[in-house]
Amino acid sequence: MSLVRSDIKRMLQYKLCLLRFKELGVNTVYSHNLGDAAGVSAVQVRKDFSQYGIKGRKRGGYNIDELLKEMNKIFGEERKNIVIVGMGNIGKALSQYNERFVKKNLHIIAGFDIDPSKQNKSFGIPIFPMEKLDDIVKQHNVSTAIIAVPFQIAQEVCNLLIAAGIKGILNFAPVILKVPEEIVIDNINLSNKLEGILYNIRE
Amino acid sequence: MSLVRSDIKRMLQYKLCLLRFKELGVNTVYSHNLGDAAGVSAVQVRKDFSQYGIKGRKRGGYNIDELLKEMNKIFGEERKNIVIVGMGNIGKALSQYNERFVKKNLHIIAGFDIDPSKQNKSFGIPIFPMEKLDDIVKQHNVSTAIIAVPFQIAQEVCNLLIAAGIKGILNFAPVILKVPEEIVIDNINLSNKLEGILYNIRE
Repeated sequence: MSLVRSDIKRMLQYKLCLLRFKELGVNTVYSHNLGDAAGVSAVQVRKDFSQYGIKGRKRGGYNIDELLKEMNKIFGEERKNIVIVGMGNIGKALSQYNERFVKKNLHIIAGFDIDPSKQNKSFGIPIFPMEKLDDIVKQHNVSTAIIAVPFQIAQEVCNLLIAAGIKGILNFAPVILKVPEEIVIDNINLSNKLEGILYNIRE
Repeated sequence: MSLVRSDIKRMLQYKLCLLRFKELGVNTVYSHNLGDAAGVSAVQVRKDFSQYGIKGRKRGGYNIDELLKEMNKIFGEERKNIVIVGMGNIGKALSQYNERFVKKNLHIIAGFDIDPSKQNKSFGIPIFPMEKLDDIVKQHNVSTAIIAVPFQIAQEVCNLLIAAGIKGILNFAPVILKVPEEIVIDNINLSNKLEGILYNIRE
């Protein structure tokens, strides 16, 4: 399975916007506020909320704390531990995202690399050799991993992750990975993204 | 406009696979080879090629060089210059992608940052202050920019880019940017991607 449904993507965007509104001290939002912030129409916001059983108040408007509670029911409140494999430039950049992720209860707890010199450097997260993958994944109940290794070894890394019990993968290696049906995978191919944008400009 | 059509995404994936096959010394591929490498069926490959007027040979199989020529007609052969705004961790990581991108004739030619200390560091690309944006975009015919700044200033940066003549944007800031209809924009929101994967695992 590889596609995250577009309604889920919008719900996640609403959640992110709600967290921002809350940080600004806002207590109540209207569907058009949220639509503006998320880049969709107010009608779309109400439609999505209704689909997930989220109701506004009679006078209109939604209480942000209540909305965030509903969102947590949908997306899960528990702490989610994540690992990165490959501590090159992208892996390193992602290892420094933790501050932002923690607000959403996403915790990048460890990185892995075959290069022993990387295992000593300070990345803000501990870096382990690949041999430790199985232990860390099981000990910390890690369900999701980010692959940031060269494309030539990405499939091998992917297989190791799945063998260790990983259920979801965000893949930065520019290659399509073969995974069993029950594994959730999303790919970010930066050069394809840029080429796609350039194609659309030409058209 | 914000969506890159899925047939375009597949065509770009085929192109990437063809470049890899060629690097391996392969001259001819069959639709099932390409389908395997791109994670789709052989039927899908033939359907996509037929939609873009690309024909196989009678005995089956495609000549890789001929296919790449056809791809270049579709996606444009000319050199494409790209800039990055925001030389934090992500900007820095992307500035070191050039080697991979150059094979597809994508050239990250410059970075921009408001921090003068970043303007002196060696990133593999020259780093300029924001005041230089207009000049560089025009001088080097840059059509596409990558936004890698904090979300609080992303809209302002986006407006500056469009004023300078940028037509396409790849946005890493976790915020929905408002752009005129004719601007092509694609967003990469990493925490939303991870949450989307985690939601799908739960389901």
